[in-house]
Amino acid sequence: MSKVREVVLRRAPAATPVADDFEVVERSTPQVASGQLLVRSLYQSLDPYIGSRLRGRHMGEPAPAPGESLPGFSVGEVIASGDPAYVVGERVVGEMGWTEVGLMSAAETRRVSCDLPAAAHLGVLGMPGLTAWAGVTQLAKVGAGDIFSVDAAAGPVGGTAGQIARILGARTVGLAGGPEKCAVLTDVYAFDAAVDYRQPDWIESFAAATAPGPTVHFENVGLSILMPALQRLQVYGRVVLCGMAEHYHADAPPAQMPLGIIIGKRAAMLGLVVYDFYPRWDEWVAMARPWIAEGKLVSVDDVSEGVMSAPDQFARLMRGENRGKALVRMAEA
Amino acid sequence: MSKVREVVLRRAPAATPVADDFEVVERSTPQVASGQLLVRSLYQSLDPYIGSRLRGRHMGEPAPAPGESLPGFSVGEVIASGDPAYVVGERVVGEMGWTEVGLMSAAETRRVSCDLPAAAHLGVLGMPGLTAWAGVTQLAKVGAGDIFSVDAAAGPVGGTAGQIARILGARTVGLAGGPEKCAVLTDVYAFDAAVDYRQPDWIESFAAATAPGPTVHFENVGLSILMPALQRLQVYGRVVLCGMAEHYHADAPPAQMPLGIIIGKRAAMLGLVVYDFYPRWDEWVAMARPWIAEGKLVSVDDVSEGVMSAPDQFARLMRGENRGKALVRMAEA
Repeated sequence: MSKVREVVLRRAPAATPVADDFEVVERSTPQVASGQLLVRSLYQSLDPYIGSRLRGRHMGEPAPAPGESLPGFSVGEVIASGDPAYVVGERVVGEMGWTEVGLMSAAETRRVSCDLPAAAHLGVLGMPGLTAWAGVTQLAKVGAGDIFSVDAAAGPVGGTAGQIARILGARTVGLAGGPEKCAVLTDVYAFDAAVDYRQPDWIESFAAATAPGPTVHFENVGLSILMPALQRLQVYGRVVLCGMAEHYHADAPPAQMPLGIIIGKRAAMLGLVVYDFYPRWDEWVAMARPWIAEGKLVSVDDVSEGVMSAPDQFARLMRGENRGKALVRMAEA
Repeated sequence: MSKVREVVLRRAPAATPVADDFEVVERSTPQVASGQLLVRSLYQSLDPYIGSRLRGRHMGEPAPAPGESLPGFSVGEVIASGDPAYVVGERVVGEMGWTEVGLMSAAETRRVSCDLPAAAHLGVLGMPGLTAWAGVTQLAKVGAGDIFSVDAAAGPVGGTAGQIARILGARTVGLAGGPEKCAVLTDVYAFDAAVDYRQPDWIESFAAATAPGPTVHFENVGLSILMPALQRLQVYGRVVLCGMAEHYHADAPPAQMPLGIIIGKRAAMLGLVVYDFYPRWDEWVAMARPWIAEGKLVSVDDVSEGVMSAPDQFARLMRGENRGKALVRMAEA
């Protein structure tokens, strides 16, 4: 039986995960049972929420123990099928650990088309893109006339959210850290403006770029951006609470916000959990497909090569050094 | 010129206002100028927000200085008109201080009908009722199938909100302090259940009464009720943030709530400011009028007699001892 390599935890991360928390192990290629698919991975998705999952801080889900398979989506090809609904050679997305070859539960696997790049199914059409779609179109219901602000905007959730808002007619302002990421927002994603929150006067820049104030703010970071954005929000503005990346690994009390500003702004604060929208994934893919074909909706991928690179690639993501959607190329398509 | 009596501040309240903070002064009856109405008060409205107004803690509005007219609505009869749109004998609602006879700005005065009790225009059809209508029908959009919880439910905002929700088809659970107020909820307002939050096991009682959890919660009190209600909220529940009475006079840092629960509950937290709905007052009166005629929508008034009683009546309201809408009868209708 041939061997496959898989990334697992070597130890429970003590703080923000670092590369040394992981190790790569060899396993025998598993046998496919009824209801399972044996899948050869093409790309492994690395996402910020995985960091909090690894520490047992995400939606009450337990942290994987050292040696157990890690959470996160893979896109790959079926190489053996234990479910008559799937045939060898089909392309699928699901969870099987950060492994070169692994088992997916057929019932929890999503078939994806081969006429789009495999990596897109983990980014702009994957969970980050679905998250952006859900927040922009289903919760905040963004449309023409809105002024839309979003942070972590060079990342796949923020970048896709801003592009959807722009396509739907909103003026779009992205927040990101540093001039390189900000250039992506305006030059690649075609946002109307970018604000570098590492600049000391960023709040003034944000106010100018969003004047007379955002009508919708999409929050991926936490209080350091949320509170200035709320203070600038137009009355009856909507705020999508999507991610709290700056708080995931803080050893501080849970993030708290003052109640009075919600009332004063007549704000609608809307909690977003992408899991609830999994049954509607095809709606997003159908909406996005022509936009991708026309070049209106683009994605930027940050790809490392091979399973051995995954621990370092994940550590880069945790440090915010990724430039676009963090992926590991596990094999040639 | 005859004299009229008016309640003003004797000193700035140092904490929750008490009766000794007020005094009653005599003034000459004012002269009506163009654009003004001279009004004989029938009832003076006393409301919790006035307490925070008196301390400069409400929506950024300055506190009245000692001797100045106090905020709050009066209902009365026009006895001299400086505006051709109003004639003597009409009934109006507006602000003129807590006075027996005073001047209203005609532009900021609302004409009300005489075929409903005068006091109703300060309670169920007044600002408390409009607040309830806005939160229940415009923000939370309550309908059949909802499970609706509301606190300070024996008060005019909570009591009216619960009744509107019940009439619109929701199961309605009210929270109030003590068995006497709770009896009003079920026996007078016909709520489905009442929960006494002074009982040590009130959270269990609330959970049982709202099982499997509220779909809408209307908050008038503050974090001590909001957080247990949020923890029981069904996913995608709506929370109307209306009043924070328990925090108005607290010398503590501003009330803060954790962000994570908004996301975990997929909640919609909706800030309510009734001022925005003043242009739509007639909609609420038109909706309520048949309900009042049919006896579906009732109100409970807590009336003290005469201008001299206003300081004590206001202090009772501040201590939560009122039983229904706090009013001062200023003259016989």
